This record gives sequence, structure tokens and C-alpha cells, in this order.
Amino acid sequence: MIYIDGLECSLFDREIFEELRSGKMTCVTCTLAFWEDASETMERIAHWRDMERDNKDLILLARSPADIERAAESGRTAILLGTQNTSPLEDRLRYVELFYDLGLRVMQLTYNNQNAYGGSCYEPSDSGLSRAGKQLVREMNRVGMVIDLSHVGDRTSADVIAHSELPVAITHANPHSLVAHRRNKPDELLTALAQSEGMLGLATYRNIAGEWIASVDKWCEMVARAVDILDVEHVGIGTDLSRKSGEAELQWMRRGRWTRETDYGAGSATKPGKVPPPDWFRSTLDFPRIEDGLRRQGFDEAEVGNIMGGNWLRFYRRVMDR
Amino acid sequence: MIYIDGLECSLFDREIFEELRSGKMTCVTCTLAFWEDASETMERIAHWRDMERDNKDLILLARSPADIERAAESGRTAILLGTQNTSPLEDRLRYVELFYDLGLRVMQLTYNNQNAYGGSCYEPSDSGLSRAGKQLVREMNRVGMVIDLSHVGDRTSADVIAHSELPVAITHANPHSLVAHRRNKPDELLTALAQSEGMLGLATYRNIAGEWIASVDKWCEMVARAVDILDVEHVGIGTDLSRKSGEAELQWMRRGRWTRETDYGAGSATKPGKVPPPDWFRSTLDFPRIEDGLRRQGFDEAEVGNIMGGNWLRFYRRVMDR
Repeated sequence: MIYIDGLECSLFDREIFEELRSGKMTCVTCTLAFWEDASETMERIAHWRDMERDNKDLILLARSPADIERAAESGRTAILLGTQNTSPLEDRLRYVELFYDLGLRVMQLTYNNQNAYGGSCYEPSDSGLSRAGKQLVREMNRVGMVIDLSHVGDRTSADVIAHSELPVAITHANPHSLVAHRRNKPDELLTALAQSEGMLGLATYRNIAGEWIASVDKWCEMVARAVDILDVEHVGIGTDLSRKSGEAELQWMRRGRWTRETDYGAGSATKPGKVPPPDWFRSTLDFPRIEDGLRRQGFDEAEVGNIMGGNWLRFYRRVMDR
Repeated sequence: MIYIDGLECSLFDREIFEELRSGKMTCVTCTLAFWEDASETMERIAHWRDMERDNKDLILLARSPADIERAAESGRTAILLGTQNTSPLEDRLRYVELFYDLGLRVMQLTYNNQNAYGGSCYEPSDSGLSRAGKQLVREMNRVGMVIDLSHVGDRTSADVIAHSELPVAITHANPHSLVAHRRNKPDELLTALAQSEGMLGLATYRNIAGEWIASVDKWCEMVARAVDILDVEHVGIGTDLSRKSGEAELQWMRRGRWTRETDYGAGSATKPGKVPPPDWFRSTLDFPRIEDGLRRQGFDEAEVGNIMGGNWLRFYRRVMDR
């Protein structure tokens, strides 16, 4: 069975690559940038090239769905390079194809703040997709880069879904009707996402998964509820796992270079620091537990396979292979 | 016959692309950067992508010798992307393969100033190849990027030739024994270059070609004299042509961001500004004239073909196809 995690922010190293293998992960999207600019993101890509060379028994950097299948066949984990912001573009449309050439395959339109392209889920007022944003969506469509809306505002997200010629993804979020959090998505947006053949990756991240992380069965019940909203072919997993990421990384994610003040991001005054992962999902070592949990929810074998990774792979083919 | 110009600093546009076609140019190396950093160089690469899309009847961006042959077969001119400095690397070794992925194929170790890798031809004291420089040469060898020594100091150049596992190039300079100018190269360096299967591209640039630009026959006589030093298989053409480049570009080349004072570069107090090209070589429209000039020097057909482009193509294959 193919296992795909649509998003992690882990600080990857060999130990984590070994966890990926023990967890039988076929493919994981990593996060190269939250606020990083072009050159800083190139530095991260370069670091991944070195990690690939040093760990070629465990991973490969995937540039295509065929590479993901190649990883599966050779008992390795495919890494999709992704960013959680468009900051690497430095507002230059033409950098999209350059970063594509360097291997970037997933890019979130905004992180926690509004940018030139649209509004974020934390802004008091969401502009919707800007003029530059429309240009960007068209260019990402043209080159075949996945558009991620996880931290993007609802209005901008709806605009992107309407404007994009290809399906888009919410790689790591949950339905707002199940967990009322700004990072989570209203049913009407999820329905529009599904109607356009897009994908939702459900997250195990404590701050946005609420009561559903109490157990693997409870979390898989959330999966079943999400399937009720989007249908089973548009639901996958995007854990938002952050192995080995600590307080310094959390402060960078939340404050970047835009504020000296406290910003809680997905946390709050009562939960200001890094929150622990669920007891039953401390690392991708635990990923296979979800498979059985889904069966206990009554999903059949084909459905389990699709949720565990098949849906993501089909989506990647649709966006990247054209 | 294949025509290759090993280096230009022209400000390319459609009119110049039409000149390239009228001049029957098979391949030209352009200059993307003199002092530009990583992101600025990416901007130039992006501009070339746009120019390729807008002028695909005339040019293609070559990533390999096979692309150069494809250009020849389809009646277009192959453009090799090059820089005259390593400034795009921002001293990061790992950026070499990233810029290679973006299409960069030729990189000069230093422009007019010493940098982390070695000394330039204008420095009072040339350090030789530094520790970082040795790492860089090895990495450029590994990925198959042409190392250009045209503006590099003699000591550093000799070190590079000795250290490089692949032949290297002096894309645009002349023998110092024929024109005594700091930019030109002593015979012993040229001999070492030839012994390592490297290439010298002879320049039509007035400031470094001296009396030899008086006529096409005089310039071809310089070619014959260079062949006496290096042997015929290591000599090609690297005009250093700068079509449409003006005073602003000249000041950027010479002063970059390193000085507020006057720097003459290859010029002098008596020749401070941009110097005109030779009367017989105002643009690549005139490139075919060299072919007949070489015949009048007594070169046979095979030798003429090699000097006009065959030697460069063989050199590119040696460096890039491995």
C-alpha cells in the first residue's frame, strides 16, 4: 500500500529518514520555507541535495509521480520539496519555473500573513486573490506546481479554486465544522475543493485537530466525517508533523521578520509553545496505525488505500503529468 | 560549417538574434552576470527564458552539446548561458549545481577583482587558487560547468589548470606576447592550457587586440600566431562583442558595487569610455568574414572549421557530456 503524507515541517535528518522507512512512507512533502527569500530557499534545496546524496539508501528527491513510484519500488521514501509561502519568489512571476527546475513541487500561496497574492487565514480582512495572485495561479498551473491553500484565507482560497485550471490542495488542515479553528476550512470551501478534484490532507497537529486526536480511532472518525463532506477520493493525510523542530523554529514560523511581538500562530495565550504530537502519532513510525484505524471505520480496502496515499498520487499525476 | 562565439556581452534582443542568424552563428555564450548575486542572476535567467519563448524561431537555450547540434539542424542559434563572475554563488559551493540546473553552463572564476576563489588579472598580487577555489573547481568539474579564466590572474589560472580534472577555457583573451595588456595571457599559461586540452577564444575587443584589429586579415594573422603557441585544435573565437551595451553597462562592469572611484577596466585614462568594435567586425553579421580570412592565412578546410567552431564544440562535449 502506498503511504503519502501531504505535509510535514520536520527537521529531517538520517534518524527521521529511518523513521520514514520504518513507517513505510512512500512519499512525504517537506517544508523548505516559511518566510525565506529566494537565496535562502536555494540554500535549503542545496541542503536537501546533500541529504539525498548522504542518504540515498533511504530517500530520493521526487520530481514527478514516476519518481514516487520508483521510490516505492526501491524501498525508499520519495521527498517532495515544498514551501509554505511564496516568499521564495520575491514577487517575481518568472521565478516559478526556476524553482520548479530546482525541484520545488508544492507551494503555499500565503503563510500566516497576507502577501502580494492574497490573504491568510489569520488576517482580519481577506482581500481575495489579487491581480498578481491570478497571474501566479496561471503560472503555477502552466509549470505544474501544486498550489497549497492550507494557511490561506477562505475568500482567497475560494478565488484560487475558481481561477485555477488544475485542482489544488489544502495539504494540512481539518474541517472547521469539526474543529472550530481559524486554520480549518468551512464545508462550502471543502465542497468546492472536492468539486474541482482537489485534495484535503487531514492533520494530526494538536492545535487544529481538537478532540479528534484523543486516539487513532477518534482521528479516523474525523477522517470519516471529512469523507462525508468531500467524498472519499478527495481526502488524504497531511500530518503537519514537526519532528525535531523546537522553540526557535516555532518562533521563526510565527514571527518571521514581520513582528517583534508575540504571535501565537495556531496556538494561543493558553497554549503558547510547541504542543506535543498525539500519543498515538509521535512520528511517521506510527503512520501504519492509521491504516487499521480506517478499516475499523468501515472503509473498504480500496478506500483505505486511497486515503493512505492513492488519492494524493492520483492528484500529483493530474497536476504534474501533463 | 559550425560557427561558435565563445563569449559576448551584448544586450541581446530580437534585432541581435536576427544578426546572429544572418551571421550564421551556431552558438554564442552570453554574459548574465558581472557582479550580480544569486537572485539577480536568476532574474537574468528568467529574462532569457522569456526571450527564448518570444524568439523561438531564432534561438534556443542550450543545455548540452546535443542542443547546439539541434540548433544547427533547425537553423537557429544556440545560446549558452554564462557569467563572468562567481558572484551568483554567493560563496556557496552548493549553488553550483543549482545554477547548472537552471541552465548555466559557463562561469568565470573572477571578474576584475579578487574574490574568495582567487585573484584577478588586475590585482597587484595574485593569491593563486584559494582553498575554497579548489573546492569550487572540483564541484564545477563534477557537474560539468565550463571554467572560464579570461579575467583571472595568471597565478590563479595556472593553479586552476593544474587542479582541474577537465580542460578549462580562456573564452575571450589574446596572447600577451602579441598584445601587452593585463587581460592577455603569457605564452607559458597558454601552453599549459593547450596541454590540458583547454581552449583559448581570441577576442576582437579593441582594448585587448591592439594593432591586430586593423583588418580582418591582420586579425586572422593574430589567430595564426596564436596557433603557433597553442596548436590549432585549442584555438577558437571569443569576440567579447558588446552590441547595444553602453556607458551605463560599462560603468557597472568596471565599478560594480565595489568602488565610487573611476576604474578603467581594460581601458585607460586615454581611452576611458566604450571603444568601438573593429570596422570589419561591428556585429556577428561579420562573423563569416573570419572564415575567408583564415583561409587566406593558409589554414586548410578542416582547420578553418575547427577554429570557427569545431574546437569549441569538441571542448563543450568533453566538459559537459560525461
